[in-house]
Amino acid sequence: MESINIKPIGVIRTQYNDSKSTPIQPFFAKGSLLSVATLNEEYIGGLDGLEQFTHIILLYWLHKSKAPKMRQKPFLEDKEYGVFAIRSPHRPNPIGMSVVELVKIEENRVYFYQADMLDNSPLLDIKPFVPDFDNRANAGMGWLAGKVK
Amino acid sequence: MESINIKPIGVIRTQYNDSKSTPIQPFFAKGSLLSVATLNEEYIGGLDGLEQFTHIILLYWLHKSKAPKMRQKPFLEDKEYGVFAIRSPHRPNPIGMSVVELVKIEENRVYFYQADMLDNSPLLDIKPFVPDFDNRANAGMGWLAGKVK
Repeated sequence: MESINIKPIGVIRTQYNDSKSTPIQPFFAKGSLLSVATLNEEYIGGLDGLEQFTHIILLYWLHKSKAPKMRQKPFLEDKEYGVFAIRSPHRPNPIGMSVVELVKIEENRVYFYQADMLDNSPLLDIKPFVPDFDNRANAGMGWLAGKVK
Repeated sequence: MESINIKPIGVIRTQYNDSKSTPIQPFFAKGSLLSVATLNEEYIGGLDGLEQFTHIILLYWLHKSKAPKMRQKPFLEDKEYGVFAIRSPHRPNPIGMSVVELVKIEENRVYFYQADMLDNSPLLDIKPFVPDFDNRANAGMGWLAGKVK
């Protein structure tokens, strides 16, 4: 299969400079300060209407990820799992996905709470989080059952 | 910002050969047949443990998307919105994200229901859907309020 070339649309600035201090998910990021995704100028028009949403999906490049191993110990477990069964950043295509709380938009700057990504993560896409599309009230927790507090 | 090179980890096979017949979201894909994401052989080990989950997140390349316009009319509206405020496939980095229902895993084949992507979409990543991480019970619907039935 041919490889695909993607060009970041901007950059995400957060308070997190190393993976040790970075929350493993927005769920655990209650202490995150106001963070900002800044889009390149040519994409400003693409933000029109995004301010109507309370939550947004950020796709970004996990730019500090290491070479992926097929089996890894996730943060919340002592056992190894396949990389596609965990949310580790060290994956074949290290694309991060976070649902975060939208605060405000000013020109090309999208301010949000609940950052769980490293500072300077290259931004790939923003999508509105639509509860009727994206929530799964009846989903199971898999190996994470009882481990998330 | 430098461009990033990504290599698909597999391919998604569905019943949808043109965008007209393709559901706009898994939510609307009640009629979707059993579909399959097939990983390249070297990634089989990465699936270990994924079978414990009821739902998974597929990231894939929207390989038939057109050149992005910053403002577009979404499927459910007559008004134009910014591309980052809608879920159109025609976006600067056409990465699709779908939460689908996991049925079974056999070797390198991940079978699922609720496909909403075109046949032969290049697969970029699979993540377990974790309700405590990914659900937002209190999220608003933005411009989609009252439009999803």
